[in-house]
Amino acid sequence: MIELRSDTFTLPSAAMRSAMATAPLGDDVYGEDPTVLRLERLAADRLGKAAACLMPSGTMANLAALMAHAPRGAKAIVGSESDIYLYEAAGATVCGGISYEPIRNLPDGTLPLASIAAAFPEDDEDPQFAPAAVICLENTQNRCGGVVLPDGYAAEVAALARTRGVAVHLDGARIFNAAVARGVPPAELAQHADTVQFCLSKGLAAPIGSMVAGDEATLLRVRRIRKMLGGGMRQAGVIAAAGILAIDEAAERLSTDHAHARLMAEGLAAIPGVTLDPPQTNSILLRVAGRDPEEVVRMAASAGVAVNTFGHGRIRAVIHCGVTTGDVHEAVSRLAKVITHSEPRLNGAGSPR
Amino acid sequence: MIELRSDTFTLPSAAMRSAMATAPLGDDVYGEDPTVLRLERLAADRLGKAAACLMPSGTMANLAALMAHAPRGAKAIVGSESDIYLYEAAGATVCGGISYEPIRNLPDGTLPLASIAAAFPEDDEDPQFAPAAVICLENTQNRCGGVVLPDGYAAEVAALARTRGVAVHLDGARIFNAAVARGVPPAELAQHADTVQFCLSKGLAAPIGSMVAGDEATLLRVRRIRKMLGGGMRQAGVIAAAGILAIDEAAERLSTDHAHARLMAEGLAAIPGVTLDPPQTNSILLRVAGRDPEEVVRMAASAGVAVNTFGHGRIRAVIHCGVTTGDVHEAVSRLAKVITHSEPRLNGAGSPR
Amino acid sequence: MIELRSDTFTLPSAAMRSAMATAPLGDDVYGEDPTVLRLERLAADRLGKAAACLMPSGTMANLAALMAHAPRGAKAIVGSESDIYLYEAAGATVCGGISYEPIRNLPDGTLPLASIAAAFPEDDEDPQFAPAAVICLENTQNRCGGVVLPDGYAAEVAALARTRGVAVHLDGARIFNAAVARGVPPAELAQHADTVQFCLSKGLAAPIGSMVAGDEATLLRVRRIRKMLGGGMRQAGVIAAAGILAIDEAAERLSTDHAHARLMAEGLAAIPGVTLDPPQTNSILLRVAGRDPEEVVRMAASAGVAVNTFGHGRIRAVIHCGVTTGDVHEAVSRLAKVITHSEPRLNGAGSPR
Amino acid sequence: MIELRSDTFTLPSAAMRSAMATAPLGDDVYGEDPTVLRLERLAADRLGKAAACLMPSGTMANLAALMAHAPRGAKAIVGSESDIYLYEAAGATVCGGISYEPIRNLPDGTLPLASIAAAFPEDDEDPQFAPAAVICLENTQNRCGGVVLPDGYAAEVAALARTRGVAVHLDGARIFNAAVARGVPPAELAQHADTVQFCLSKGLAAPIGSMVAGDEATLLRVRRIRKMLGGGMRQAGVIAAAGILAIDEAAERLSTDHAHARLMAEGLAAIPGVTLDPPQTNSILLRVAGRDPEEVVRMAASAGVAVNTFGHGRIRAVIHCGVTTGDVHEAVSRLAKVITHSEPRLNGAGSPR
Repeated sequence: MIELRSDTFTLPSAAMRSAMATAPLGDDVYGEDPTVLRLERLAADRLGKAAACLMPSGTMANLAALMAHAPRGAKAIVGSESDIYLYEAAGATVCGGISYEPIRNLPDGTLPLASIAAAFPEDDEDPQFAPAAVICLENTQNRCGGVVLPDGYAAEVAALARTRGVAVHLDGARIFNAAVARGVPPAELAQHADTVQFCLSKGLAAPIGSMVAGDEATLLRVRRIRKMLGGGMRQAGVIAAAGILAIDEAAERLSTDHAHARLMAEGLAAIPGVTLDPPQTNSILLRVAGRDPEEVVRMAASAGVAVNTFGHGRIRAVIHCGVTTGDVHEAVSRLAKVITHSEPRLNGAGSPR
Repeated sequence: MIELRSDTFTLPSAAMRSAMATAPLGDDVYGEDPTVLRLERLAADRLGKAAACLMPSGTMANLAALMAHAPRGAKAIVGSESDIYLYEAAGATVCGGISYEPIRNLPDGTLPLASIAAAFPEDDEDPQFAPAAVICLENTQNRCGGVVLPDGYAAEVAALARTRGVAVHLDGARIFNAAVARGVPPAELAQHADTVQFCLSKGLAAPIGSMVAGDEATLLRVRRIRKMLGGGMRQAGVIAAAGILAIDEAAERLSTDHAHARLMAEGLAAIPGVTLDPPQTNSILLRVAGRDPEEVVRMAASAGVAVNTFGHGRIRAVIHCGVTTGDVHEAVSRLAKVITHSEPRLNGAGSPR
Repeated sequence: MIELRSDTFTLPSAAMRSAMATAPLGDDVYGEDPTVLRLERLAADRLGKAAACLMPSGTMANLAALMAHAPRGAKAIVGSESDIYLYEAAGATVCGGISYEPIRNLPDGTLPLASIAAAFPEDDEDPQFAPAAVICLENTQNRCGGVVLPDGYAAEVAALARTRGVAVHLDGARIFNAAVARGVPPAELAQHADTVQFCLSKGLAAPIGSMVAGDEATLLRVRRIRKMLGGGMRQAGVIAAAGILAIDEAAERLSTDHAHARLMAEGLAAIPGVTLDPPQTNSILLRVAGRDPEEVVRMAASAGVAVNTFGHGRIRAVIHCGVTTGDVHEAVSRLAKVITHSEPRLNGAGSPR
Repeated sequence: MIELRSDTFTLPSAAMRSAMATAPLGDDVYGEDPTVLRLERLAADRLGKAAACLMPSGTMANLAALMAHAPRGAKAIVGSESDIYLYEAAGATVCGGISYEPIRNLPDGTLPLASIAAAFPEDDEDPQFAPAAVICLENTQNRCGGVVLPDGYAAEVAALARTRGVAVHLDGARIFNAAVARGVPPAELAQHADTVQFCLSKGLAAPIGSMVAGDEATLLRVRRIRKMLGGGMRQAGVIAAAGILAIDEAAERLSTDHAHARLMAEGLAAIPGVTLDPPQTNSILLRVAGRDPEEVVRMAASAGVAVNTFGHGRIRAVIHCGVTTGDVHEAVSRLAKVITHSEPRLNGAGSPR
């Protein structure tokens, strides 16, 4: 099976495995794990922030950051197609009493500035309105196809946020992909955000963990919230050891993934009935004319290619370090067969290719 | 000053004042206030439900109903232009850990069925999705202009809700207006909802209070939540006494209001530059070409007519029992002067009338 | 039936009824009800605070004050026998994410200072501990028998609170009883608290309502929370009008109640088997040797005297303005008969009288 | 430095390190990590439950279990000296709207049955009372000195719980210590609990992770809550691999720890001024006459022995697999010197040695 459902399926490298087996350890709940401290320093530096904190997941990283920014009863302005809004079980509502205000994402992953501005109450003093406390961006934007936010956009959002006295949180689960695609360091993409989270798993291939980075005062709050949520881990150096390598190896690992994604996209685009936009990073969203996405996913699976539906009639294939150049060619070939050699079943009405 | 900002400015009638002064009372926290019991029986009957419960406000009525339907971590599907979503300070999020999922309202006040269906998680078992627990409708729909939901719509929503195992809550703050406009009893409009709230204040002119009606089991939960929120009131018969009259007098009171609204709308529509839709109930939304709504509101106030902006470039004028036929004519006359005899200030660029 | 279950059963006076029927009104959600504004000014002045806010109940008054003082995740230090902890359905936990830390009340209603000090985390920076945000006192202390907190105690608690950077909230549901008993103005008893709530109902005999008083900034937060909880009421002047009289008439009303309570206590103490402490205000807690409290309550009811059990083997009788001197004598006489002329049923096994 | 502050400082064995480096992995968020599945099966079997779930920490394990048992607004009956109440940052309150009702622990770690019974509302229907939903036990009980709950106690609590329709959750962070001390399988100690959590870290020496075990339906809720809290981890097999060995090696590892604890306790008891109870498991609580515990901790540290204060004037020394027989003798010797050869500083006033 060629695994293209997500880059969350990455397996740690031999070097990571070895680092986990030999890392110096301590009790991180007491702040005494040297490998965690090293990872947190490294992550803060790479993101250009004063401090960073290891988390068991990106979900908790986003949740703790939102709770650190927004008091009970405030709202978080989020993308209607953001992972925070769609895939994180309303955690900030449950644990934080924070209300999500979804703004419709444009295809380039942005939230229109005018829509963000309109999400603020007309009158901050009027108690019938929940006040806004934080604006959330996502880079790369997953549901829009792993797209990189346009240059200059984050700065505009940050300027608006400063004017209104709210924070900016960047869900940078895949910010290293964005940085590689843009050819800039991740700190450049994170500079306009008060906090940023990124995943050591996914494309970076560490088995477990995400980081939140930001200023010292905010990170103290994040650490307090992490403990309350149950994210304090004991000898966490075992996962931090892999995380350090994940960061060190990121650039090379991801540029290969992106090249593979472009290669696969070219192959898929040549299949009759397939439409897609050229991938900006490691994610390919395709539509197949006249076919139900669920059906394509099933047929692909039976041909040994694991992909998933992705809403809005789309199928997603994600490249990661477990996918070789050979896998790319093989996957395209199998999908081509599946798509062209079978009768479409959508809508009945005789729609031939 | 002719007060048209809202029908929340209604004052109790002499009969209500007198009833408040003479009502038999008891401690309603012990369930021993006979006037409250009478009102709750009356409200339940008029709405066609088994039970009803007095609340200090419509906000608490909606909040307690949502909390009775939705456990922590579930979501409430609401209109993007609903009062519950816009004007109730995210109470269900703060107090209930309930996430709002806003669906864009159509101009007729409805939420498209397909959009409601799409708000349910693809996979109920997948823990990354917050499950839906309740769908909220609003009738009349305030922000859409006091419109009455189309016949048959609530039944369709209820059918969908039953299929998905969720409840329907009807924010019927002004359901008596809707009933009068349709010429049907309010119970007919409430029949497809599991719970309905309506306000004794607003058009019905009682000074304080709203009712939640529904089945016995749900109302027990509502009562429990009311106590926790601090909505249990002692000798509440004093306000219930006015509420009983409010319900009894509703039909006549509101049909006059609606006639006045139509009369005023005709007058306003004749003013050059004014556009509006004919009012379905007691609320008129108008736009004035080439003018900033804030400016119109200020000038109207200086001419003795109190109106408000209402988002989307609109101005709202609301009719209620404190507005006489004479007031209607006078208000139209004053607004006509204000709008036609002053230079527009919008956008500078010499825009003539 | 002579009603001694609680002073919550008080009925408004004819003057209150009349005031409710004639009060000038407005929409208090817009801050335009002149009678409410008058009441809020009066309440603030009487309590010696800068501002005050009308609430539908004492439960909401306490809840909103706690939420104004304590952020999500903080704790409120409360008496183990306090109404806030026992009778308010954990509202601050549900709506505010605030944890109660109960401290055992001494019989005089106080919480030992050393116990309060011990409730603070050893290390404020350690994220495993919930930080404290507010200390709650209660005066009169209901479950300890309507006792008045000792002179000087509140000042000591306030000094500790200032040292630790937390607020003091005073549940003064019956603070006017305490003030009358001490012969001081209520402001003197409230001076060491950051916020104080008191009930217009109960001994003061208004039908509905409680007030929160405190500084301007805190009261702004209280108002915001009130709206979110659903405590914003429209023409609330109807209940405020009664509240104004309730405050004006308080001193005389309550000194009569206290005299009646002493009179009744003397009568009850003379009944063989009855033990009680002399009442400090309007509440009498008694025990009957060899008898189950539930049984005494049932027999009293059958003799036309309504009392209640009150935990710890006690029965409570509460005096209020609906109890005349004649009622006091009659109630004592009926209870004496009930207690002395019937076989005790406790423990069955040959228990002699 | 001989590390006796806690058994949370245990380091993974070479076998664990090796297992982590070679474990077969998958994405556990998709339920596809074979090593996690193996650990969850093993843990469920050992605890005698139908299902189990891996968590990043014991804090989250307790939090998710409480949220699975208790709806918003319910209360959890806990020990006043329980880790859940004292050291978990009020997480169930913040994330779950659950109120803690602390019951005073007896020295043997139990909560008196009568006190538990008294924590239930007198009247379940009365909305002023928060209903109880779960009773929490802790075995071994940490703050009482690592004591093992008496035989038969859990069964009595479970019987009470069944009568009242609530669940029993067992915080078995160190249940393997309790099982070894009793000479029974952990399943025997867990049989009366609906859910049990235990730590793979602490005495079992895995670097990260705790397990919740219980019936299938409850565990489904636990998994859903885990995702929301951010406890879903990707290739979690790396930590599960160590967890499997931790369970397999537990009995031998812990019986050595307990023998060491007895040995150390004997040595310490012989130091003049030291008082302690014989340890039941791996934790020793001592008092030093005439000395401030903080001072003893500082002096011990300067002599190369790390211990901590533990409230109530006590010092705690905890044995774990990083402590050898030689360490035990050395630590006793150093502490003896520190305690006997230095002037006491407590209270100044001529306090003789």
